[in-house]
Amino acid sequence: MRTQVVIVGAGPSGLLLGQLLHKAGVDAVILERQSPDYVLGRIRAGVLEQVTLDVLAQAGVDQRMNKEGLVHTGFDLLFKGERHRIDLSGLTGGQKVMVYGQTEVTRDLMDARQAAGLTTIYEADDVQIHDFDSDHPSVSYSKNGKTQTISCDFIAGCDGFHGVCRASVPRKSIQEFEKVYPFGWLGVLSDTPPVHEELIYANSPRGFALCSQRSLTRSRYYLQVPLTDKVEQWSDDAFWGELRNRLDPEARENLVTGTSIEKSIAPLRSFVTEPMRFGTLFLAGDAAHIVPPTGAKGLNLAATDVKYLSDALIEACVEKSHAGIDHYSTRCLARIWRAERFSWWFTSLMHRFPDQGEIGQKFQEAELDYLIHSEAGSRTVAENYVGLPLNFGE
Amino acid sequence: MRTQVVIVGAGPSGLLLGQLLHKAGVDAVILERQSPDYVLGRIRAGVLEQVTLDVLAQAGVDQRMNKEGLVHTGFDLLFKGERHRIDLSGLTGGQKVMVYGQTEVTRDLMDARQAAGLTTIYEADDVQIHDFDSDHPSVSYSKNGKTQTISCDFIAGCDGFHGVCRASVPRKSIQEFEKVYPFGWLGVLSDTPPVHEELIYANSPRGFALCSQRSLTRSRYYLQVPLTDKVEQWSDDAFWGELRNRLDPEARENLVTGTSIEKSIAPLRSFVTEPMRFGTLFLAGDAAHIVPPTGAKGLNLAATDVKYLSDALIEACVEKSHAGIDHYSTRCLARIWRAERFSWWFTSLMHRFPDQGEIGQKFQEAELDYLIHSEAGSRTVAENYVGLPLNFGE
Repeated sequence: MRTQVVIVGAGPSGLLLGQLLHKAGVDAVILERQSPDYVLGRIRAGVLEQVTLDVLAQAGVDQRMNKEGLVHTGFDLLFKGERHRIDLSGLTGGQKVMVYGQTEVTRDLMDARQAAGLTTIYEADDVQIHDFDSDHPSVSYSKNGKTQTISCDFIAGCDGFHGVCRASVPRKSIQEFEKVYPFGWLGVLSDTPPVHEELIYANSPRGFALCSQRSLTRSRYYLQVPLTDKVEQWSDDAFWGELRNRLDPEARENLVTGTSIEKSIAPLRSFVTEPMRFGTLFLAGDAAHIVPPTGAKGLNLAATDVKYLSDALIEACVEKSHAGIDHYSTRCLARIWRAERFSWWFTSLMHRFPDQGEIGQKFQEAELDYLIHSEAGSRTVAENYVGLPLNFGE
Repeated sequence: MRTQVVIVGAGPSGLLLGQLLHKAGVDAVILERQSPDYVLGRIRAGVLEQVTLDVLAQAGVDQRMNKEGLVHTGFDLLFKGERHRIDLSGLTGGQKVMVYGQTEVTRDLMDARQAAGLTTIYEADDVQIHDFDSDHPSVSYSKNGKTQTISCDFIAGCDGFHGVCRASVPRKSIQEFEKVYPFGWLGVLSDTPPVHEELIYANSPRGFALCSQRSLTRSRYYLQVPLTDKVEQWSDDAFWGELRNRLDPEARENLVTGTSIEKSIAPLRSFVTEPMRFGTLFLAGDAAHIVPPTGAKGLNLAATDVKYLSDALIEACVEKSHAGIDHYSTRCLARIWRAERFSWWFTSLMHRFPDQGEIGQKFQEAELDYLIHSEAGSRTVAENYVGLPLNFGE
């Protein structure tokens, strides 16, 4: 079997890349270790930047999103018991974000891929990548007990943090930067109307809380919890009770609680791989970098990687020019470090860090107080939140 | 002996308060543990904000400063081997800072006090403050073996971090916030022309460096060093060599070295006391708060405290209104926490933190890169550096 590009991983990155390549007439096969239902079952972020909306439109998968997605022009920062709105649009010349769950993006991409009759091999076991230091790489996998090999020109590693692609790169060729945070996020999904029409990011002496949403009838809430907590320890009642403790009186009053339809604890991590290209192998999305979820940069960064990668691969396959693939890593990493910096900073600003003591909380409150009262300060938050322009700093 | 206000400490805070009270016809006596020469021998910061210039003008001690001080309208940030100018004036609607050493400010204040024939008791031993929870406080001291007591209406604690005033407040009445940094500043003063007409703040993988100055012929340089280093370990040659290692090629080339006329290592600390008023006792300046020196906020914060305190005491002594003294603590602390936040942030941005690893350096470089390329980002640096307006956030 032969194709131009083998994409490892059928999450949103891999699917989006497949769609963009297809639109440009480049052949690709996607290999995925899990089943379609498993992929759709992953609950992730749900705030999309304009740059991401543009890429999804380019891929032709924006119809349902434009109908069902919720446009947000601001969000609330809650600290010292009071809420203050960050007017994203007013501070950035009219920019906005779209609330539309990663699960929905994935579903739209799966539907589009199926409609186009493109090949996705699910439940592919023992995926291995070969000879990516040459111009004749290949990918092998086994399915129903039979081993198959696909020859290709390029391999796209869209297989996430724990995937096989990054792990296959020789240690001496790669540098990894990592920070692990001393807490996790306990998340609850519930079919209840959101407490507020926009998101609320709460800094409280009891720890961080986030009131997010997926639609007008589905809410997503998070609480900062110690890494030692087990999800079984948290009944729905305990969750709602603690969430209330971290909110302002008005939000506490307006909170509609209900049965959780998903509940889990996720660790927080900052992680970056340098470089992102190794011969004919390219990493994209979570395979190359992880951000803590504060500020919802994960999917948005992946979308930009995929945009750059599809441009580069199309250039290489169609125009036979290597300029794009030669610049892929540098181009991505400039944007990635900016988003990593913002996500680390926003995480550091909003969470309780046990080792920072009382003065840590005071510094956070002073910074939040500065940010809401300074036009320049508010604008730094807003312009990073909606996403810095692709040509930032050039 | 009786006076309206006893000021403990004849550093710049105490002297400035004395001068402002004198101008308004309020009697004050200053008690100082050390000799005048000892006070003048302390080398401290030398960058004054506009608010400080205004208070010094109000005190009538700005003639020599206006003649000899150097007006700076920007400074350089150096990272990843390149320098980038922060245009303070352009970013803040024309604001600027003045380079004029704390030692010179102190000397001008001492001269003015002497010229006015006001009482400063130097080398006062065993200073103790009494009954400041009442309206008849007093201060005792011994001089030449004889104990004296001064009755007064108010006590101003301008006696620094290690002074007797804060230490005399019952522990239950006071809350202290503190952060100690895992490094110190090795400073050298030399009679050499500054390497650059403005200041250079350098972030380097080898640690922070600062190229400051006191005049066109006197330079002040600093290096981040481990707290375990002893000043005796650092020869002048070793200092200049390491400074060169942390600079860009142009600065390295332009650096004029010479014999150090002062060399010392200072620890870095963030510290805030809440509240700052205890009955008829008021703390001001270093007695109530310490900032790390990055950004030079120490003397400027003290000047604002003293401005607020003089206004309040004049109101109380002349107009018999307690409104000012009732608001003193709250008014000061709002400004103090903003400057504490900025000093902590600027310190965190520029220094090498051993426990933050390689990703810590990458976050710093990404933040610096963001700040110089974003107009809003640059403006947050500039507006804090020149000093937020007194009515900020109101």
